[in-house]
Amino acid sequence: MSFIHLPDLHADGAPAARPAAATGAATAGSPTADLLLGLASGRVQIVDLTAPLHEGTPIIRLPAERGQPWPFQRELISRYDEKGPHVYWNNLKLCEHTGTHFDAPIHWLTGKDFDDVSEVPVQRLVAPAVVIDLTAEAGDPSFLLKQRHVEGWIAQHGPLPQGAWLLYRTGWSRRGGNADEFLNNGVTPGVHPLCAQWLAEQTQVQGIGVETVGTDAGQAGGFDPAYPCHWFFHGANKYGLTQLRNLHLLPARGAMLVVAPLPIVGGSGSPCRVMAIFDRAEA
Amino acid sequence: MSFIHLPDLHADGAPAARPAAATGAATAGSPTADLLLGLASGRVQIVDLTAPLHEGTPIIRLPAERGQPWPFQRELISRYDEKGPHVYWNNLKLCEHTGTHFDAPIHWLTGKDFDDVSEVPVQRLVAPAVVIDLTAEAGDPSFLLKQRHVEGWIAQHGPLPQGAWLLYRTGWSRRGGNADEFLNNGVTPGVHPLCAQWLAEQTQVQGIGVETVGTDAGQAGGFDPAYPCHWFFHGANKYGLTQLRNLHLLPARGAMLVVAPLPIVGGSGSPCRVMAIFDRAEA
Repeated sequence: MSFIHLPDLHADGAPAARPAAATGAATAGSPTADLLLGLASGRVQIVDLTAPLHEGTPIIRLPAERGQPWPFQRELISRYDEKGPHVYWNNLKLCEHTGTHFDAPIHWLTGKDFDDVSEVPVQRLVAPAVVIDLTAEAGDPSFLLKQRHVEGWIAQHGPLPQGAWLLYRTGWSRRGGNADEFLNNGVTPGVHPLCAQWLAEQTQVQGIGVETVGTDAGQAGGFDPAYPCHWFFHGANKYGLTQLRNLHLLPARGAMLVVAPLPIVGGSGSPCRVMAIFDRAEA
Repeated sequence: MSFIHLPDLHADGAPAARPAAATGAATAGSPTADLLLGLASGRVQIVDLTAPLHEGTPIIRLPAERGQPWPFQRELISRYDEKGPHVYWNNLKLCEHTGTHFDAPIHWLTGKDFDDVSEVPVQRLVAPAVVIDLTAEAGDPSFLLKQRHVEGWIAQHGPLPQGAWLLYRTGWSRRGGNADEFLNNGVTPGVHPLCAQWLAEQTQVQGIGVETVGTDAGQAGGFDPAYPCHWFFHGANKYGLTQLRNLHLLPARGAMLVVAPLPIVGGSGSPCRVMAIFDRAEA
């Protein structure tokens, strides 16, 4: 028998809904069953926000006197050969902060007494997300998000949901295939220090997600304080998410973000799969 | 302002539901909004099925002539010190198959023309899960799952849902804190070759998830075919999940599994966060 055929959620026509029993739920009408049914029928969509991980994945460039993150590297263990006739697999080297990744509070001095990545409550890993689109403004690579931009979003879309991710869309992910363009000699869009402080201390968001190599602007080492997203968000026991893609496919509000760092005990963060789930009608 | 307080989903009393606006959804009554509301109210529960990742995480032991996976190792980059006054982070070494991990079809010779881990459709990463409890039988560490056990589950709980994960509960995760006990000199519960073939070729499950170090029994190198779960599941373009925990907290059916491997381009698998989401009433 060939492999089962799941509905093609890329197709234009939504496939017919299947009976609730097919979802495995004992109770039709339950939230979990309804979401599975929505996925099966095409009413609910999943979008992968994760950058592919490989040897060309851009990593942050720091002054030579600073400790350096490893780029993604792999070492072949076997590929159907004498080292393993039936098995293909690789060993890996990378950094907790390589590629699309999660920054835990302990990553920064201001959050040193808060959670490491394995201690982040699992309930925080499934949360609402809102998307603020500054693509046009970020045509200037030194653009910084300010409080008034977020207040403009709120005026249009309503309050920031409690415990939400603020996803900061800049279009920067379009450069993700070329490390030099992506890192742009250290000038990339970010967040103004006053806005970072306000978001972290005065709003209900649980973290910020960006398209760039880190949550802060490339030039943020010279800000006061340096790296203000790290400084204020982690100092408020909040999180960061980086190198997101496909934000243009998401609704401004209404998506649910699933954020899945590896539970590295004592870890400062982790490479991370990030998926957005939302009703197609809201996109 | 101190950090927002999300409802404590571990508490016995369910907190009061919040208004739909708090979920960020534009449309109350939508599947995504209802799930977020269920999480906020405590009606819906998230359980982390992932083993913590650290230097003591057990890895598979293979004959010396075979290529060997790296255990999890880390190298400090800086910890609020001269290498980075404000930053704590680590570089990492590990294997695609270290700790709780996802096996892609390409991991095995029989699946070499199917998907690598980055090619697995994201729609497959959110799927129904069923749990078959063989904890009592797996008191014998050489116990093998047979078709009749699964047929017994079906007689009691109904058909295996289309595209579901079959989660094979053995209680083996209780040994996860001690690598010698966990690996048990190569004798650990698994799946009989005939059952592996039947599940892979004749049922609608998309993969098998286990508590042990790999999807196959520890002694499966001597089976015909060797490592039958790998042989048949990957040969049918299906998946494996290993080193799961907390299966005893899940309902026999009705859970939604979120499986989040890193999208390693060309990768045979990936360390993986795994979360189960289900209505509390079904547990």
